[in-house]
Amino acid sequence: MLQPDFDKQGGLIPAIAQDAATLEVLMLAYMNKESWEKTLETGEVHYFSRSRKKLWHKGETSGHVQKLKAVRLDCDEDTVLLLVEQIGGAACHKGFRSCFFRELSGSGVKECSHKVFDPKEVYK
Amino acid sequence: MLQPDFDKQGGLIPAIAQDAATLEVLMLAYMNKESWEKTLETGEVHYFSRSRKKLWHKGETSGHVQKLKAVRLDCDEDTVLLLVEQIGGAACHKGFRSCFFRELSGSGVKECSHKVFDPKEVYK
Repeated sequence: MLQPDFDKQGGLIPAIAQDAATLEVLMLAYMNKESWEKTLETGEVHYFSRSRKKLWHKGETSGHVQKLKAVRLDCDEDTVLLLVEQIGGAACHKGFRSCFFRELSGSGVKECSHKVFDPKEVYK
Repeated sequence: MLQPDFDKQGGLIPAIAQDAATLEVLMLAYMNKESWEKTLETGEVHYFSRSRKKLWHKGETSGHVQKLKAVRLDCDEDTVLLLVEQIGGAACHKGFRSCFFRELSGSGVKECSHKVFDPKEVYK
């Protein structure tokens, strides 16, 4: 099977998660070979946490897992696009549907994503 | 103005380009501070080419520039989402609308993006 080229960038590739239904871009995180294989094997998205330096089953704490619907590979084989069902409705640890919840413009910053939960209630 | 944190990852951050109208994810490339500023200043997307190690005005060869419609920043300030109008209809140098033109599945690979042009006709 065609695979991402993990060696190109020291073992990690960026992975974009996009809502399979609404097409909203939810987040970007990184995958190593182990998280890639675990994602395909389980059907739930696993990343590699660069801060904790370990496998990260997205939603393991909040319950907001990402169910994999489809996976696409780019022309250079060094980025993947994950089409997902976002359980709980929010991908961002700050409680927003998307991590890209701030839109910048000349006049400042505006919120552009729905706030789904209060992080203080979810991460206790 | 709120800015991406370029220092966090050695000067480069991933930038996702999404079609502002159809919400299709078109490509992922990298930006340094110069390309970020040039993008905001000109309204046309500039990346940093890691292979050529220089500022890359997307579409400079093919004419398929990306007109910036909006820019969003993620919660960690280390990834940007660019909402663009893709002139010419294709972001990928292989002639597809999206660089993510291959969908992987257990049974193999299928094309999942429209082929807009023949690269041999555009890059002469």
